[in-house]
Amino acid sequence: MKHNATTEHIQEVVDAIKDMGYEARPIPGGQRTAVGLLGNDGRVDSARLEGLEGVLEVIPVTHPYKQVSREWREENTVVELANGTRIGTSDVVVMAGPCAVESAAQIMDIAHQVRDLGATVMRGGAFKPRTSPYSFQGLGMKGLELLARAREATGLAIVTEALDPEGAKAVAEYADIVQIGARNMQNYALLRRAGRLGKPVLLKRGMAATIDELLLAAEYVLAEGNEQVILCERGVRGFDTHTRNLLDLTAIPVVKALSHLPIIADPSHGTGVRSKVTPMARAAVAAGADGIIVEVHPDPTKALSDGAQSLYPEQFAELMEQIRPIARAIGREVTAPLGVLTHG
Amino acid sequence: MKHNATTEHIQEVVDAIKDMGYEARPIPGGQRTAVGLLGNDGRVDSARLEGLEGVLEVIPVTHPYKQVSREWREENTVVELANGTRIGTSDVVVMAGPCAVESAAQIMDIAHQVRDLGATVMRGGAFKPRTSPYSFQGLGMKGLELLARAREATGLAIVTEALDPEGAKAVAEYADIVQIGARNMQNYALLRRAGRLGKPVLLKRGMAATIDELLLAAEYVLAEGNEQVILCERGVRGFDTHTRNLLDLTAIPVVKALSHLPIIADPSHGTGVRSKVTPMARAAVAAGADGIIVEVHPDPTKALSDGAQSLYPEQFAELMEQIRPIARAIGREVTAPLGVLTHG
Amino acid sequence: MKHNATTEHIQEVVDAIKDMGYEARPIPGGQRTAVGLLGNDGRVDSARLEGLEGVLEVIPVTHPYKQVSREWREENTVVELANGTRIGTSDVVVMAGPCAVESAAQIMDIAHQVRDLGATVMRGGAFKPRTSPYSFQGLGMKGLELLARAREATGLAIVTEALDPEGAKAVAEYADIVQIGARNMQNYALLRRAGRLGKPVLLKRGMAATIDELLLAAEYVLAEGNEQVILCERGVRGFDTHTRNLLDLTAIPVVKALSHLPIIADPSHGTGVRSKVTPMARAAVAAGADGIIVEVHPDPTKALSDGAQSLYPEQFAELMEQIRPIARAIGREVTAPLGVLTHG
Amino acid sequence: MKHNATTEHIQEVVDAIKDMGYEARPIPGGQRTAVGLLGNDGRVDSARLEGLEGVLEVIPVTHPYKQVSREWREENTVVELANGTRIGTSDVVVMAGPCAVESAAQIMDIAHQVRDLGATVMRGGAFKPRTSPYSFQGLGMKGLELLARAREATGLAIVTEALDPEGAKAVAEYADIVQIGARNMQNYALLRRAGRLGKPVLLKRGMAATIDELLLAAEYVLAEGNEQVILCERGVRGFDTHTRNLLDLTAIPVVKALSHLPIIADPSHGTGVRSKVTPMARAAVAAGADGIIVEVHPDPTKALSDGAQSLYPEQFAELMEQIRPIARAIGREVTAPLGVLTHG
Repeated sequence: MKHNATTEHIQEVVDAIKDMGYEARPIPGGQRTAVGLLGNDGRVDSARLEGLEGVLEVIPVTHPYKQVSREWREENTVVELANGTRIGTSDVVVMAGPCAVESAAQIMDIAHQVRDLGATVMRGGAFKPRTSPYSFQGLGMKGLELLARAREATGLAIVTEALDPEGAKAVAEYADIVQIGARNMQNYALLRRAGRLGKPVLLKRGMAATIDELLLAAEYVLAEGNEQVILCERGVRGFDTHTRNLLDLTAIPVVKALSHLPIIADPSHGTGVRSKVTPMARAAVAAGADGIIVEVHPDPTKALSDGAQSLYPEQFAELMEQIRPIARAIGREVTAPLGVLTHG
Repeated sequence: MKHNATTEHIQEVVDAIKDMGYEARPIPGGQRTAVGLLGNDGRVDSARLEGLEGVLEVIPVTHPYKQVSREWREENTVVELANGTRIGTSDVVVMAGPCAVESAAQIMDIAHQVRDLGATVMRGGAFKPRTSPYSFQGLGMKGLELLARAREATGLAIVTEALDPEGAKAVAEYADIVQIGARNMQNYALLRRAGRLGKPVLLKRGMAATIDELLLAAEYVLAEGNEQVILCERGVRGFDTHTRNLLDLTAIPVVKALSHLPIIADPSHGTGVRSKVTPMARAAVAAGADGIIVEVHPDPTKALSDGAQSLYPEQFAELMEQIRPIARAIGREVTAPLGVLTHG
Repeated sequence: MKHNATTEHIQEVVDAIKDMGYEARPIPGGQRTAVGLLGNDGRVDSARLEGLEGVLEVIPVTHPYKQVSREWREENTVVELANGTRIGTSDVVVMAGPCAVESAAQIMDIAHQVRDLGATVMRGGAFKPRTSPYSFQGLGMKGLELLARAREATGLAIVTEALDPEGAKAVAEYADIVQIGARNMQNYALLRRAGRLGKPVLLKRGMAATIDELLLAAEYVLAEGNEQVILCERGVRGFDTHTRNLLDLTAIPVVKALSHLPIIADPSHGTGVRSKVTPMARAAVAAGADGIIVEVHPDPTKALSDGAQSLYPEQFAELMEQIRPIARAIGREVTAPLGVLTHG
Repeated sequence: MKHNATTEHIQEVVDAIKDMGYEARPIPGGQRTAVGLLGNDGRVDSARLEGLEGVLEVIPVTHPYKQVSREWREENTVVELANGTRIGTSDVVVMAGPCAVESAAQIMDIAHQVRDLGATVMRGGAFKPRTSPYSFQGLGMKGLELLARAREATGLAIVTEALDPEGAKAVAEYADIVQIGARNMQNYALLRRAGRLGKPVLLKRGMAATIDELLLAAEYVLAEGNEQVILCERGVRGFDTHTRNLLDLTAIPVVKALSHLPIIADPSHGTGVRSKVTPMARAAVAAGADGIIVEVHPDPTKALSDGAQSLYPEQFAELMEQIRPIARAIGREVTAPLGVLTHG
C-alpha cells in the first residue's frame, strides 16, 4: 500500500481479496502497510487489486504457472521418440538439417549426412513462417512427405514446424515432434491444438518473451494433457547488428531450476551467422542444454532460406567433434549415433 | 565484399545474382569492392549471397515491402466504417471500451458512456489472449453478440480481436474492425485470413517487432487484396518496471513517412498504468496519430482483466477534453461525436 | 522465503536483519513465509539477505532514493537561471542551439536566430563526447568563451556539457547549466563534483538506465547539497534502425509522479532524424515535459557533428509555432521570449 | 539516394564528399542511385551527408575503428602480467575474488583460497561504483594497500577498478590491471588517462553498448599508445527479471573475429545469481573466452556488496574443476596454478 493509504483503502483491498475467494492478511510496517493474499492458486488477476486506491504495487510471490514447475513435478520430464531418442536425460540430443525442405534430393542427401555424423533427429521446414509474404513459404504437404521418406530411409526422428491449428494436425501425422516457432509462442489456438495431438512439442521462445511467458505458453500445452514438451532458447531481440538475435544461454540453467521440462538451444537462429554457430553450440552444451538444433545444408549458398546461418556438412562434423568432449566434461554424453542402416 | 576477396569470389557473387534473375554490377573501391544488385523486386533472399565466400555484408537498399509503402501509393489510405467513421483523414478517431466484454450490463453501460463522451468506435474483447491458460479467456461468441447489441443501441462501430483463422470469420460477421493482437502480429495464417474477410483490420505491433516487420505483416493482408488496414503502436518490450511496455511514439511519424496506412496508438497497453494513459494519449495525438484506442471500464477495480490500466469514465471524459485542443493545435479535429440517438 | 525453508532458515534471516540494525517481522503464509524488514532507510544492501539459504527473493518496498523523491519534497523544484528563465513551473522552457560550438560566426549567428524564435536557453557543446576517438571532439575552452560571448550578446542562458571533474569546474564558470551526458550518467566522480559547483545541473538519462537509476544518479548531486537538477529523457537503446534511439516519453509522467525535479525531453538525440524532431517535440510537451532541448544549426549539412538530427532555423520556427498551442491545450505556456535586445 | 533524387541532389552529395577530402563515385541502379565514398579512413562524419536533400541513407562499409581491428593487426595481442600470467594465448585465465575489499582479514583469507584453487589474478574493488550514493563505496586507498599486501603474500596479480582519472593513477601504482567498469565504458577522460598509465586495462562492456562501441572505447586507450587492453563481456540490459543482466556470450566469437584483443567474460555480473555463475562460466570457456572473472567471497551472506552473486569458496573449487576439461575439449588449458608459496 502507499504510505498515505488510509484504513479504508486497506479494508477495500482486504474485501476485494476476500471477494475473489482468497484470504487476506494486512501486515503493518514502519512506513507503510502490506496486505498478503494467501492461497494464491495461480489464478489471481492482480490487475483488479492494482486498480484500487492506495495500492502501490502488487508483488506476485508464487509463480503464475503450475504443471510446468519443478514444485509440481520434481524429476525431469523425459520426451521419448519412436526411434529411441530420449530428451531430458543425461544425453545431449542433436537435431540437425536444413532450414527448409527444398527437394527430394536435397532432403535425402542431408538426412544421410547428418545421420552419419551423429544426429538422431532431423529438422526441416515444410511450412515456413517468413517475414515477407514474397519469400519462399515452403513445400507444404509435399515437404512433409519428403521428410517422412527421409525418416524411413535413415531412422532419424523428424521435427518440423506447424503454423496453424489445421497444419498442426497434418504435421503430427508425419512428424515425431511438432515445432511451434518463436513467432507463434503466444498463438494460443495453436498451443491448445498442440496439446491434443498426442505428439511431443518443441516450443521456441518468442523474440521478446520472458522466461515466465515461455513457461506459461508451455503450460497451455500441458493444460491440454500433453506433458511431452521440449523448450528451446533461440535468441531474443537484441540491439547489436553483428548478430541476428541475442542468444540468452542463461535461460538454460534458469529454466532447469524452475521447470522439469527439457530445454535445448538453437545457435543457428540464435546468432544468424554461420561462423558463430559452432562456438555457441559448444557454449549451450556447457551451460547444460539437453540438446541443440542446428541448420545444416548440403550447399548453404544455394539454400532457399537462412543460408547465411546454415553450416556446411563438414562444419557440422567439426561441431559434433567439439561438443562430445564438452558434454563429457560435465558428465553427459552426446546421444549415440543411430545403428548401422539396414536399408537406405 | 571483404577487403581480401579475390576476383574469383567477386565473380561468384556476380554469377549468383544473375542466377537469381537480377543484374549485377561490381563497384571497385579503395579498400574493397562492392557488388550492386539491380532490379530487386523485394523477393531477393539475401541469405544466399551472405553465404558466399568473400562476402562481408549484404546491405538492402530497397525496402522489402511493397503495397504498404508510400512509394506504391502516395496518398493516405482512408479506412471507412459503416457508422461513418473515417480513419486516415485529418480527423483523430477515438476507440474506447473495456478490455473484455464481461456482461450485457457492463458492455451496454460503458457503450453509452463512451459514446456520450465522444468515442465513435468501441473496443471490447470477446476472445482474450491471456498469458496464463488459467486467466479469464473472454465470453467468446456470447461476447460478440453483446458487442453487436451495443452497436445497435449506440451506433458505435465495433473493434474486437480474432485469435485464429476460424475465430476471424466469426469476428468479421459481428464486428466493424477485426483486430489482430500483438502476440499474433506474425501469425501468418491469421493475417492471410484477415486479408480475405472483407472487413478492415487493426494490426497491432508485436512486442519486439521492428517497424519494417510491422509493415511486412500488413503486407500479408494487402497481398490478399485487403487494403483497409489500420496499424497500431502499443508499446514494445522495455526494461523499466515502472511501466508494462515502452510506448514507441516515434513509430508514428516513421510509419507515416514509409507507408500510406493510418496508424493509431494504444496508451493503455503502451503504459499499463492508469495514471499514465491520458498523458500518453495526448502525446500520441501530438505526434500525429490518426487515432487512439483506450481502455475504459465502468468500474476498473472489478474488471476481469487489465483493470489497472483501464480509465474510469470520468477520466476518459477528461482525456477527451484534453486531446481536442491538441488535435486542433496541429490542424486536426477529434472526430465529431455520433449524432443524437434515435433508439437506445 | 522458499516454500521449503526451515524454521532455522527463517531465524537466520531474522537475525541477519537485526544484525543490520533493522526490525524483522516473519509473516507466515499458506505456501511460504515472508519476512518483513521494517525501518528501511534506503541503505539496506539486499544482496546480503538474498545470499542466505532458504531465501527466494528480496522485494524492495520502499524506493532506494530519498531527497529526489516526492515523498521527501511535495512541491515541484524550480530551477532558476540568471536570465530569469525558470524550469519546473507551468512554463515550458525551450533550449536550442547547435550540437557543437564550431566557430564564433556560427555560434553568434545561431544564438540570435534561436533567441529571436523564442528560445531562452542555448545549447552548444564545447567538450564533445564522441564514440570514436577520431571524430571532432569540440573546441574546448575556446568553445566556452564563444558561448559566453553569445550569452552576452543575446541574453540567452547557456547549457553545455562537462565530461570530467576538472572540465566541470571550467564549464561552471562559463555556463548557466552544467550538462552531464547520457554516457556519464553513472560517472559518480563527475556527479559529485557537479553537486558542489553551485550551478544547476542538466542530467541526461543513460542509454540503458532505468528511471530508478536516473533518480539515483540525481540523488548523488542532491546528496552534495545541490538541489538545482533538471532531468532529461533523451531516448534509450532500442532495436529499430529507423531511429537512433527509442524516445521513452512515458518517463516524463513517471518521473513527475516519483520526483519533484523538473524533466525535459531531447527529441534530437531521442530520434536522431531531423524529420522526426518536431513531432516528438510536440509529443513531449503534450506528455507534460517541463521543456525541450533541440539541436538547431545555421546549416545542418555543414555541421561537424550530428548534422542529420539538427533542424534548419526555419524548421525550428515551425516547431515553436506548433508547441505553443499544445502547451496552452494543457494549461501551460511556452516561456515568453527574451525582451528586446539593447545590444547585439 | 532516394528514388526521386534529382541530378542536382546527387551532384551535391558528390561535392560534399570531395569537400571532405574523399573521392565520390555515383553508382546508378534500377530504382535509385547510390554514391560511393572511397578512401574512408574512419574519420568520415556521415551525419553531414545524411543531412543533404535526396539522401536516403548513409551506409558505412568500413569499420569506424582502426588499431583494435584484426585488419590492423592479424595476430592476437597477448597481455602480460608481472606474475607471469599471459592473457590472449591458448591459456584460459581465471580472475577471482570478492566484489569489494572489506578488511585485511577478508582479503587475505580469500586471496589464499582462490590462489590455492587455481586463480592467478585476484579481483577486488577498492573504489566501488554504486547505483545509490548511500551504499558502501569501498575502502579507497586503504583497499588498494590491502590488495597490494595480498599480492605480496600470494603472488596473485591484482585487478581493481578506477572510477576517475585521478583514481586511475593511484590504481595503476598498486594494481597489475586497471579495470574500467561498465558504467564508465564511455568515460573518455578516464579511457584516455588509462591509455597513458603504462598498465594493462580491463575494459568492461557497457550495459547497452554495441560491440562496435566497445571496440571504439578500446580504441581510445590504444590511440594513447597502450595496446595492453583486455575486453570483458559482463551482460547487457535485458528484460527478464530472473537474472540481473543478459550475458551476451556470442560477443566473444564476434569480438575475436573483429579484433586482436583478448576478451574475457564475467558470469557473476552477467547473471547476478550465484547458482547461474558456474554454468555460465563453463559456457564462456566453451564459447572461446580468453578468461573469466568471478566473484568469490569467504562468506557471501556477509558481503558488503553483491553477496547474492558471489560464490562460496567450495563452489569456486567446483567451477575450476568443471572448466578445466571444457578448456581442454577445445584445445586450451586453464592457466597453471601459481607455484608453491615460499612465504605466506
